[in-house]
Amino acid sequence: MTGWVRIAGLGPGGDALITPEVSDVLAEATDIVGYTPYVARIAERPGLTLHASDNRVEIDRSRHALDMAYEGKKVVVVSSGDPGVFAMAAAVFEAVEAGPGHWRTLDISVLPGITAMLAASARCGAPLGHDFCAINLSDNLKPWSLIEKRLRLAAEADFAMAFYNPRSKSRPEGFVRTLDVLKEACGDTRPVIFARNVTRPDEEIKIVPLPDTTPDMADMRTIVIVGSSRTRIIERDGAPIVYTPRSTPE
Amino acid sequence: MTGWVRIAGLGPGGDALITPEVSDVLAEATDIVGYTPYVARIAERPGLTLHASDNRVEIDRSRHALDMAYEGKKVVVVSSGDPGVFAMAAAVFEAVEAGPGHWRTLDISVLPGITAMLAASARCGAPLGHDFCAINLSDNLKPWSLIEKRLRLAAEADFAMAFYNPRSKSRPEGFVRTLDVLKEACGDTRPVIFARNVTRPDEEIKIVPLPDTTPDMADMRTIVIVGSSRTRIIERDGAPIVYTPRSTPE
Repeated sequence: MTGWVRIAGLGPGGDALITPEVSDVLAEATDIVGYTPYVARIAERPGLTLHASDNRVEIDRSRHALDMAYEGKKVVVVSSGDPGVFAMAAAVFEAVEAGPGHWRTLDISVLPGITAMLAASARCGAPLGHDFCAINLSDNLKPWSLIEKRLRLAAEADFAMAFYNPRSKSRPEGFVRTLDVLKEACGDTRPVIFARNVTRPDEEIKIVPLPDTTPDMADMRTIVIVGSSRTRIIERDGAPIVYTPRSTPE
Repeated sequence: MTGWVRIAGLGPGGDALITPEVSDVLAEATDIVGYTPYVARIAERPGLTLHASDNRVEIDRSRHALDMAYEGKKVVVVSSGDPGVFAMAAAVFEAVEAGPGHWRTLDISVLPGITAMLAASARCGAPLGHDFCAINLSDNLKPWSLIEKRLRLAAEADFAMAFYNPRSKSRPEGFVRTLDVLKEACGDTRPVIFARNVTRPDEEIKIVPLPDTTPDMADMRTIVIVGSSRTRIIERDGAPIVYTPRSTPE
């Protein structure tokens, strides 16, 4: 049997957002590797072994997947959202680059998924409808100084911004600083969207003017989207619509 | 019959990338509205009317969809990729905001799709695996000066960058300038990915060091991804892997 690795995105939570391409490889797999809550989304069946592991062991998990594929297993590494956006794809390739040469001969590919910022954007309108950036606010992989620099340059560029991993329990101060920097750098009342558990039964979406935002509005299950200076709100009965127009006048 | 509007993403081209959520609304719809090549992807069936229209009539198309929904039709506005990324969602909401008050009472929602930059990223590895930005290079909706400002700030922030609509037939000079600005502002040999017709049978992917890029490498069916200063290439037999590591050292 010739093994392979597929690094697959399960989307943000709802099964209706898993692509047929990903469903097909899950049906063919012999082994599933991933962070425990994502592996828990895969149905058990005969012939399939589930390998759940803890957060922060992404490189160990990648090596395990690559070793099993080399032995002939059909391995799916599962990520929430899209595997290429702050998820497992980069980790697997870091392991390939640092690993034994025979890993480079493996059949390995990435299957995209609906990433959380685009699901969150869809749920409230189209806040990312014009130029935008995506920043991982977790500072365990980069210095805070770089995050602050990017926030200030993104505000100057007038990008809408999407933040992943905004506020960890162990280092909550980063998001306090993030909101302080944005309030100063943006200086207006643009809307900020806090989308928690997006597309799941317990989804919660809050839309808050930037000056009124507070750090406790986010946790690690929240995607935060900050509008650009041109982002607009359409009020109506029920939830308002937040969107960024396509054009910027001269 | 109570009408509705769903603004749905068909993904970049392959049917295996259309989410079940989108397939379900296509099966329920009475009317499909969209740009001709995207409407051509929808199978005809009894009870379904296809309304194909030309490019650059996004607001007329949106009004038509909203009017039909108000009359009780079940209308799907189709976009390629994700409707919230340089596509129809913002156009529909522009029409809602400028239109009659009764449009604000409609049942209207956005169904996300796999956007082209994430499909392109997946096909060559994980070049968007760290912080990145997405810029629409079409200058018919914003002045060139704003595009240039964003390019320079994105380079200073060391974002990877994804460009949509890089080079139109009517205004090809914008992409000439884009490459000139990036060569000067980045000053290195980081990889640039030109992904044309991604996930379709005629997909073509080129990986070119920034100094060797030329404007003719892109057209309107190409997504361009420019790595950050830390983006790496893993050489191997067959196509190389391009990825951006998750971490940036102090």
